[in-house]
Amino acid sequence: MSQSTRKADTLQDQPTNRPHKLSIAAVEESTDRKPHSYERWLIAKFLRMAGNPPVRFQLWNDEIIESDLSAASFTLRLADPKALYQLVSNPNLAFGDLYSSGRLEVEGDLSDLMTALYRAVHKAREQWPKWLEAVWRNHNPRSTSVSDARENIHHHYDLGNEFYQLWLDHAEMQYTCAYYESPDLSLEQAQLAKLELVCRKLRLQPGQTVVEAGCGWGGLARYMARQYGVKVHAYNISREQLAFARAEAEKQGLSHLIEYIEDDYRNIEGQYDAFVSIGMLEHVGKDHYSEMARVIRRSLKPEGMALLHSIGRNRPMLMNAWIEKRIFPGAYPPSIGEFMSICESGDFSVLDVENLRLHYAATLEHWMERFESVQDQVTELYDAHFTRAWHMYLAGSTAAFRAGSLQLFQVVFTHGDNNNLLPTRKHLYSALAAPEA
Amino acid sequence: MSQSTRKADTLQDQPTNRPHKLSIAAVEESTDRKPHSYERWLIAKFLRMAGNPPVRFQLWNDEIIESDLSAASFTLRLADPKALYQLVSNPNLAFGDLYSSGRLEVEGDLSDLMTALYRAVHKAREQWPKWLEAVWRNHNPRSTSVSDARENIHHHYDLGNEFYQLWLDHAEMQYTCAYYESPDLSLEQAQLAKLELVCRKLRLQPGQTVVEAGCGWGGLARYMARQYGVKVHAYNISREQLAFARAEAEKQGLSHLIEYIEDDYRNIEGQYDAFVSIGMLEHVGKDHYSEMARVIRRSLKPEGMALLHSIGRNRPMLMNAWIEKRIFPGAYPPSIGEFMSICESGDFSVLDVENLRLHYAATLEHWMERFESVQDQVTELYDAHFTRAWHMYLAGSTAAFRAGSLQLFQVVFTHGDNNNLLPTRKHLYSALAAPEA
Repeated sequence: MSQSTRKADTLQDQPTNRPHKLSIAAVEESTDRKPHSYERWLIAKFLRMAGNPPVRFQLWNDEIIESDLSAASFTLRLADPKALYQLVSNPNLAFGDLYSSGRLEVEGDLSDLMTALYRAVHKAREQWPKWLEAVWRNHNPRSTSVSDARENIHHHYDLGNEFYQLWLDHAEMQYTCAYYESPDLSLEQAQLAKLELVCRKLRLQPGQTVVEAGCGWGGLARYMARQYGVKVHAYNISREQLAFARAEAEKQGLSHLIEYIEDDYRNIEGQYDAFVSIGMLEHVGKDHYSEMARVIRRSLKPEGMALLHSIGRNRPMLMNAWIEKRIFPGAYPPSIGEFMSICESGDFSVLDVENLRLHYAATLEHWMERFESVQDQVTELYDAHFTRAWHMYLAGSTAAFRAGSLQLFQVVFTHGDNNNLLPTRKHLYSALAAPEA
Repeated sequence: MSQSTRKADTLQDQPTNRPHKLSIAAVEESTDRKPHSYERWLIAKFLRMAGNPPVRFQLWNDEIIESDLSAASFTLRLADPKALYQLVSNPNLAFGDLYSSGRLEVEGDLSDLMTALYRAVHKAREQWPKWLEAVWRNHNPRSTSVSDARENIHHHYDLGNEFYQLWLDHAEMQYTCAYYESPDLSLEQAQLAKLELVCRKLRLQPGQTVVEAGCGWGGLARYMARQYGVKVHAYNISREQLAFARAEAEKQGLSHLIEYIEDDYRNIEGQYDAFVSIGMLEHVGKDHYSEMARVIRRSLKPEGMALLHSIGRNRPMLMNAWIEKRIFPGAYPPSIGEFMSICESGDFSVLDVENLRLHYAATLEHWMERFESVQDQVTELYDAHFTRAWHMYLAGSTAAFRAGSLQLFQVVFTHGDNNNLLPTRKHLYSALAAPEA
């Protein structure tokens, strides 16, 4: 794949049925003129509506506009008048786009800035009128039908194994929340600890069979086969990931235990002792939850255990527009209430829900550190726009988990009539989950 | 209170807006005549619709009717023709009523029979036509407004402390699910283990303040004050329970730490480090969840922890009609999805959900054993009808938890922006929760 198709493939606008709400095409990008007084008013008003975050704006003529209600820790520089109008008319989408294109520059740590913005806006929203709330969240997520799902997944996960290898852990290429059972763990240790925690929750025994929906680069399947001696059928629709997964299983001598299958989770066949899915539910889409429930119901043996691990919300709410449009088309993080429609329609009994929100903030901080250390290589692979977009994506996600805008749920469930249950969850904590450093 | 008013108060029909669906008042109770052939057909059909449980019917003339599809382990004797019509026309309500009045007699262990019935019906229902499903679940639960709640709670919890003392644990009079972290625990140990588990989930520290909504006989409040040195405001609207609770706190020298308050949970005042409610949510009613969320939201300090412990369901479904009418007016066990409306409307972050279903089956088995050993005393306090009704209630509840028709959820949550969280739940398992025997 050439660099230019890669770029076009990953960061272009996704198709949408809806025109932009304000036409600002006519506003000049010229930086020759001074700001108008209503532009100053607009940006000050914008700061107030956003809950007076500790932020000052620097306009294209170097003029500073700041709230008199909070001391600014961050400076946001708008490169031209059009950037100002784009930001105030659709901040959710424009903030990321302007940052990616370099027309909004940030002085200060990007993750800290985003955290401050999330917190301020979260508080301010309690006072917002309904129309503003509606404008803020108004976007049409992509479909996640079988064919669209392929395109959505290709968009993100087929960026190239080379790219992800630059900054993910070197243990099992995990692109999901790690488990920092103690705060000093390395990314590698914490990712292996996550895999171990999942196996313990599933109560895996040698010789059992497991099906995995959405297996990424196949790390969990290899961990389960290697550490627990189970047989795994691992499904994924990302071809590049599967090629990597198969080669790695071969290298580790695990091919006899793992079958990596290029197919949609809806086509899973057979019955298993465990059903597991780590970080796929976000891409399933609410409309397909009952379908997913039917898949799990028919795939799980009478005493089988299921575990879904997913980004979620405290309340139903669309994915951030910029993330959904530019990074993860079709993504939707469910609230537990929404999540439960899977368990309810499948007549499952939920045994355990754990929220690992701050573990994802810690994971993202580790990813960011590595990403920043390789950003020149990333820019060489793609371009500066791509690098800035990913910087924004990692910083924004860190902030969302820190500020409580996103959650990370692990939900364990089984058939409603399965009485083969453990009395406590102490087996999860009988020994450290992470390997020694 | 005289015995006769007690009986009238506790087991009479609750007011209802709806006439019985079939009028069977005209059917004779005489046992002189032989069964008609359509009555034999009716009871055989009834067995089939119920999924062919391992049950035979013995009619009033000793004639046996059994399914040819399953070997019968239990005999149900119907005393008269009217009992037959009452049973088939409204089995949910009539089964308990006929058993209570002695017109349906059971040969075999009642809890085991009820478990077999629950399992058979659960499977059969998957094939039921919609109208049968609708008939099965058609009843109007009682309101749980502030004034009706008082009446509902009085109906059950003011039966008399003397009655509950006969068969509840002698440690802290717990009338909720115990925690059998190991299967050989006594009822007393398991109830104290439950209280300890709740304190650990709330991460109580000496000097903290706790508010409890629906405190029963005050055992959790005393445990928290005694073992953790916290100050507790414990609310309850059952006067008899509060009198006991205050006397017991006095006896234990804990009155300076505990204030027992006779008031509705909706009138809770102040802010606390923890909000806890054990076995009250079942009586709150779905219509009042957002009200409850507001109460918790304003009562909980920024880093406070909340725990709700409640009977629940895998899917939304009304309480069993007989239990709701005769035992617990207004009771409704929520699914986790319904439960979540509390957390979502309060903008809370759910940290931990644990399902203790089989612990409630074990608790009920212990209660049943004690209840059976004192049933003569119970009959002396009330009458034989009351004793049989409670026998049915305990057996039916045991069965519901064994068969997966009821669940027991403990949900821990906090304000959405509270980052003072522990990385793991291993503190729950650092030592046994139960005291030594």
